[in-house]
Amino acid sequence: MSSPTKFVLDESKMPKHWYNIAADLPVPPAPVLHPGTMQPVGPDDLAPLFPMELILQEVSTEREIPIPEPVREVFKLWRPSPLVRAHRLEKILGTPAKIYYKYEGVSPAGSHKPNTAVPQAWYNAQAGIKKLSTETGAGQWGSSLAFAGSLFGLQVRVFQVRVSYDQKPYRRALMETYGATCVASPSNETNSGRAILAQRPDHPGSLGIAISEAVEIAATNDDTKYALGSVLNHVLLHQTIVGQEAMLQLEMAGDDPDVIVGCTGGGSNFAGISFPFIGQQLRGGKKRRIVAVEPAACPSLTRGKFAYDFGDTAHLTPLTKMHTLGSTFTPPGFHAGGLRYHGMAPLVSHLKELNLIEATAYHQTACFEAGVMFARAEGIVPAPEANHAVKGAIVEALRCKAEGRSEVILFNLCGHGHFDMTAYQNYFAGKLSDQSYDEAELAMALSGLPSVPA
Amino acid sequence: MSSPTKFVLDESKMPKHWYNIAADLPVPPAPVLHPGTMQPVGPDDLAPLFPMELILQEVSTEREIPIPEPVREVFKLWRPSPLVRAHRLEKILGTPAKIYYKYEGVSPAGSHKPNTAVPQAWYNAQAGIKKLSTETGAGQWGSSLAFAGSLFGLQVRVFQVRVSYDQKPYRRALMETYGATCVASPSNETNSGRAILAQRPDHPGSLGIAISEAVEIAATNDDTKYALGSVLNHVLLHQTIVGQEAMLQLEMAGDDPDVIVGCTGGGSNFAGISFPFIGQQLRGGKKRRIVAVEPAACPSLTRGKFAYDFGDTAHLTPLTKMHTLGSTFTPPGFHAGGLRYHGMAPLVSHLKELNLIEATAYHQTACFEAGVMFARAEGIVPAPEANHAVKGAIVEALRCKAEGRSEVILFNLCGHGHFDMTAYQNYFAGKLSDQSYDEAELAMALSGLPSVPA
Repeated sequence: MSSPTKFVLDESKMPKHWYNIAADLPVPPAPVLHPGTMQPVGPDDLAPLFPMELILQEVSTEREIPIPEPVREVFKLWRPSPLVRAHRLEKILGTPAKIYYKYEGVSPAGSHKPNTAVPQAWYNAQAGIKKLSTETGAGQWGSSLAFAGSLFGLQVRVFQVRVSYDQKPYRRALMETYGATCVASPSNETNSGRAILAQRPDHPGSLGIAISEAVEIAATNDDTKYALGSVLNHVLLHQTIVGQEAMLQLEMAGDDPDVIVGCTGGGSNFAGISFPFIGQQLRGGKKRRIVAVEPAACPSLTRGKFAYDFGDTAHLTPLTKMHTLGSTFTPPGFHAGGLRYHGMAPLVSHLKELNLIEATAYHQTACFEAGVMFARAEGIVPAPEANHAVKGAIVEALRCKAEGRSEVILFNLCGHGHFDMTAYQNYFAGKLSDQSYDEAELAMALSGLPSVPA
Repeated sequence: MSSPTKFVLDESKMPKHWYNIAADLPVPPAPVLHPGTMQPVGPDDLAPLFPMELILQEVSTEREIPIPEPVREVFKLWRPSPLVRAHRLEKILGTPAKIYYKYEGVSPAGSHKPNTAVPQAWYNAQAGIKKLSTETGAGQWGSSLAFAGSLFGLQVRVFQVRVSYDQKPYRRALMETYGATCVASPSNETNSGRAILAQRPDHPGSLGIAISEAVEIAATNDDTKYALGSVLNHVLLHQTIVGQEAMLQLEMAGDDPDVIVGCTGGGSNFAGISFPFIGQQLRGGKKRRIVAVEPAACPSLTRGKFAYDFGDTAHLTPLTKMHTLGSTFTPPGFHAGGLRYHGMAPLVSHLKELNLIEATAYHQTACFEAGVMFARAEGIVPAPEANHAVKGAIVEALRCKAEGRSEVILFNLCGHGHFDMTAYQNYFAGKLSDQSYDEAELAMALSGLPSVPA
């Protein structure tokens, strides 16, 4: 216990560039296709939704993309985030492994999401945009964009899935504290929302519907753009500051990770911690195991098909090649709302196909068990999403114990669970379900994938 | 905006001693009296409730008291906490003042309370104690002691005021995540609880009743001690690590505070940020303004009487000389549960009588208004208690603007509001009341103060 616990970088050491893994890929990822023409989309196709700087980042193959100075100034409110050696967890597990976690819960919104919300808001403000629209489920992304919007004077309108809007009022209160407007989706504010409400006035909503509403608002209003919190290349790019910082902090600690673990929903926090390390390997550096941990109830990487699919249920988005459960797939209820997505980021999917990463899946009860062990050892109560990474790290640490190896394990603790205590209550009450997805529904959803000419 | 934002100490620079202001006081505080004999209490009188090391700290006049190494190891999970220059808030206010805040919300439980919970748990564990009992209102203190207990293998039993137990289940879930047991008070587990339930089975509880239950459990069980989260000298002592760190961090920043602001309930976070600076002054250093900010609905320092009084409503505690509203005083409902106490820490009260500190009071709506402004500027959503300090700091910054002075303002942001979002919802809905206390009730409560021979 006499070795240091936290490795803290001075803010002058905060990375000045994002790392773009596209520069180092041995094979480029499949192009994004326009669903009408089946031809690759160009910048102009995306211009109604995003400012040009973000579109250029989406397709860039430059290795280093500068982080604008005003964005770095905002990051200094909480970045560099701490890297912590989990001494107490190691001791409880009796493992010879060293466990480090990068803690992103120190951000104002409590997760890694502001790492991309802030630059997205800034680039939009620079382009003269006055309003942003987005969707959110449980509210991690919505509250992050609300925070970012408040910094640059952007009005943020968040379409929140109605069932979350009703059941989780605290994240909504957080969005409102940052000055954003939160609307229950489906709403009467859009054609897509009105069409759904006409059929079913008490519709509980879905992320797919909320995306459709947010996209419609952006596409039909010149002063409004759309913002997405994961999946896209530029979003993953913005998260690479996490792994770059971790690399510097592990140098301070005199360690080099053998295994890197992250949870995966859309893929952004996993990409953030791992891409800079994968890039090192691609440029001839150390080979490491990179483990993506996903929920067994929504297992796109481990059970999905690598194919072209839509990003939303209403089929308004372009087609991207990714691991997908099918855009109509509905996972059973579980508490890691941030991991309930039918697809996986195209870049993460591509790395999986190249065998540069591994993937594994766990049910939520095992993940909460890991999270509670972590909280009692290290103090921090992880978000339900982050519990998947904790579980993955503990599995690796116990493997090291069994094999007598003192490997170095790094995982991304991507957020705290302060707004998710209902999930912990349910866990303690024995009310968590480990229900699996419906195999027939998965088969049905996969059978509906769009057919794309080879 | 090019000057640094955060001032981060390496954990090797974390203070190794607590600062004991008793060593530097020009006049000693009045003795604590036994209510039966009206004679000063000795260590033996307190031995049923506290381990001897804490009792010795309570009466020590040594200037520096070493922080045990195992306690420092735990502190490294989040300490040293950041000192942040509030660049964005300064800009919004248009003030020439420099505003710094010390942020204690980075602790696992989200406030400054673990600074004393951890050493209290450690000293008890060292003394062979197996169980701790305590009370909590909203749950900040209970969750902190639950966390500390989990680290040293102590069973923690928290008596939570029933109305909070029912209305604020998330902090209870946090306590349970750390492995503590949380009991609604009044309960059937104690004589004092049973007596109250016999009269009124649906009694909503009060902090005074919960204290009585926790004290009774400790007094009647050899393996159990009691722990208190504020007011007592040793609790304030443990918080001085906050001000000592801030002093080092302000040296890094090249600034020296002119005004130091903290909110006051029992007095512990205020003492933590200010006592090391007051000590400097008492030893011949710079004279600074030290401002305590309290709720206008429970204004012990600004409207209370400096007199001997009980610490609890059931009159089980010794008598301490302090600013008090009377132990039977019940403040109107407001959201800063941590500031709803009838008395003030004897050491803080003593400093007020010596004119070493100032005190001011604000209603909660003005404090929430300040907190929302702070959240939109700096990202962090403060706890309702901390909003009082934010308000106090903004008032000073606007005074500097009016006077054209570029003073340096330091305030203690003692916790985040993640578990208090209902209060923010009420604020946005215009439902916050600024009801004052009842003057007749205050007069009644003060008329009931115990008479103590001069």
